[in-house]
Order: sequence, then C-alpha cells, then structure tokens
Amino acid sequence: MSNKVVCDLSISADGYVAGPGQTADKPFGDGPVDRLHAWMFDTPAENQAEVDRITSAGAYVMGRNMFGPVRGEWDLDWTGWWGEDPPYHAPVFVLTHHPRDPLTMQGGTTFTFVDGIGSALDQARAAAGDRDIAIAGGAATINQYLAAGLVDELRTHIAPVTLGAGERLFDGVPSLDLELLATRSASLVTHIDYRVRH
Amino acid sequence: MSNKVVCDLSISADGYVAGPGQTADKPFGDGPVDRLHAWMFDTPAENQAEVDRITSAGAYVMGRNMFGPVRGEWDLDWTGWWGEDPPYHAPVFVLTHHPRDPLTMQGGTTFTFVDGIGSALDQARAAAGDRDIAIAGGAATINQYLAAGLVDELRTHIAPVTLGAGERLFDGVPSLDLELLATRSASLVTHIDYRVRH
Repeated sequence: MSNKVVCDLSISADGYVAGPGQTADKPFGDGPVDRLHAWMFDTPAENQAEVDRITSAGAYVMGRNMFGPVRGEWDLDWTGWWGEDPPYHAPVFVLTHHPRDPLTMQGGTTFTFVDGIGSALDQARAAAGDRDIAIAGGAATINQYLAAGLVDELRTHIAPVTLGAGERLFDGVPSLDLELLATRSASLVTHIDYRVRH
Repeated sequence: MSNKVVCDLSISADGYVAGPGQTADKPFGDGPVDRLHAWMFDTPAENQAEVDRITSAGAYVMGRNMFGPVRGEWDLDWTGWWGEDPPYHAPVFVLTHHPRDPLTMQGGTTFTFVDGIGSALDQARAAAGDRDIAIAGGAATINQYLAAGLVDELRTHIAPVTLGAGERLFDGVPSLDLELLATRSASLVTHIDYRVRH
C-alpha cells in the first residue's frame, strides 16, 4: 500500500508521551521525560533508520499544541518550536479552530492551518504525492486519528522508564486489532511497528 | 545477582493485562483478551525460551484473585485453576487476609497462604534457594511489588492488540528507572526484559 497514514511516537514503558504539569516552558511536563527521546538525541547513530523514516513522510498533520503553546487567537510572531528551518521539509497541516494564513518556512516546510481531522488528512494526502502521510502528534491528535480508524501503521518507540502519570497514547481509543510487523531494539529504545487492521 | 525477584506479564500494546468485566467465569474479562496469551498457547515453539524461563523460578508469589475467584472465607474445595498438577512445580505463596492450611499438590507445587507482601516475599526467598522468585500476578499484586521497589527484573510480553479498558500494569506505580536488558520478537509478541534500578 502506498500513501499510508503512519504515526511514530516515543512512549514510556507505561505508555505516556509526556508527564503531568505540561506548560509552555515545559512542553513535555514533569518527570524523567528526557528519557523518552534520549534514543533519538543521545544515540542517533544506533537509530538512524528510524529517524530517517520519521523524516521521510510526504506531508504531516499535527495538533495545535504540538505547533506551539499559543491558546485562543494566534500570536502571529509564533512560527513553531523549530526555528527558521523546521525538520519536516514538507507540507505540515496544523489542526486548529482559529484560522491563520499559511506560513512558508525555509527548507521546504510549510504550515497550513486547518479545521478538522478529516479535512487535514485529505489535504495532507493530496500534498504527499506517493509518499506517506505522518500524524506527527501530539498524543491527543494521534488518539483522535486512531479512534477514527484513520491510521494504517503505528510505530511505538518504547523508552526504558515509566512516568506514572501524564498524557497517554491510546487514551480514549477503543480496542485495536494490530499486526506485529517488525521490532528492533537499541540501547535506549525498543522500536515496534504495527499495522492497524481495519 | 542470584535470587532475583522477577515478574513476567503478558500485556496489550496499551498496557492492559485483562479487560473490563472480569468474573469467575471470565477471569480475563471482556474484549480480545485471548490475544494476550496467544503467543504462549498458539506459538509455543517460537517462544520456548521465554516459557522455560517463566517456569524456572524457585518459588512464586501470587495474589488471591490469581489463585481463584473465591471471596471472603475460603471454599476449601477450591485448589486453584490448574488441576491436580499445577505448572509451578515449586512453592507458591498466595496473598490473603484469610488464613488457610497449606495445600500440597502433585508435581512439587505447594500453596501456602500468607498475609502481607513483605512476608510472602521473605518466605518465597527462603524457599527458592538460589533460584529466582517470581511474582506471578495478577497485575494488582505485581503493581504492589513494583510500587514497593521489590522487583529486580520486569519482563513484559506485548501482544499486538489494544483493549482500551481493563486492568493495567503500572497502575498506581510511581516513575521507575528501568534498564533495557534484552528484547526479542516472535510472530505474536514482543518480549522486553527490564532491570529495575533501585
């Protein structure tokens, strides 16, 4: 199947993507949350295949909270967490009820502001060509797409830590029939790829 | 380290060990709960090393609900779910507030009824010799031992399914610092071994 809808998500062994107490200054909240992404930042060479795959999508969809901590109307000075040249290098569709003109960044990343998960996915699919569409996060957005049956492949990256509280993958998602496609481990992570059976 | 305290637990990708609606007739509750243990029953040859390891402990501790659905005072006709020759072949310490005389089964399994997780572990350790002590389950018992910092190795066996509700590993357990020891996958499961850092 070409043009798959994929999700990559780093989670703790107890399924959290972020700790409690998330704020604009601490987008991942409290607790040992650095451990969730240490595999990517501290051991990139071990995990190059996974990093390359995450950045290979033809288009991305993300929730407004992943784009920025802004609430209510837009602060037009906010152009995301990633500086002038975000790592997406592709069209990114940001879910929001607040209209905003598109932003063109360096390196091929564009941010387009869209209302509704179906509309965002349709636009991302049209923009992705024959490459995959990635639901980039956060967990609330991924959980919406999972609950709606719109995700084809889910790839969890499980860090060796538990958080005990926070924002959880699968929260509010009904039972899913998964097919185990592949697993691979490195020193700080276990990668598991699932196909979601529809 | 010899004489480790170990836990093996089959969980869904969203961390459940059983679905909602557990009853005496349906000890794993509702939903596709057969999928949790399919790796062990449907593909034993692929997973022989893990099965052998689970059954190699020198002593076991289990919660009363794992021993049986009996509530309140004991029904002395109830001798566990496993028939005359349970698969433990070792001393098993059953946590309960209701005293009961020990039961000697065939094949080397004995059930001893003990009050308190510390006392049960002490007795299991004394009985295990230089072999490991296994906290056999259920999840509530394992979560108590994890929360008390008494588990040395946690081995999750993750089935490719989510349940969406039920009884969860790590429920009520504070953040744990884990070390990823080993992972292995088969067609119906991803095995992950963690050391719990104390």
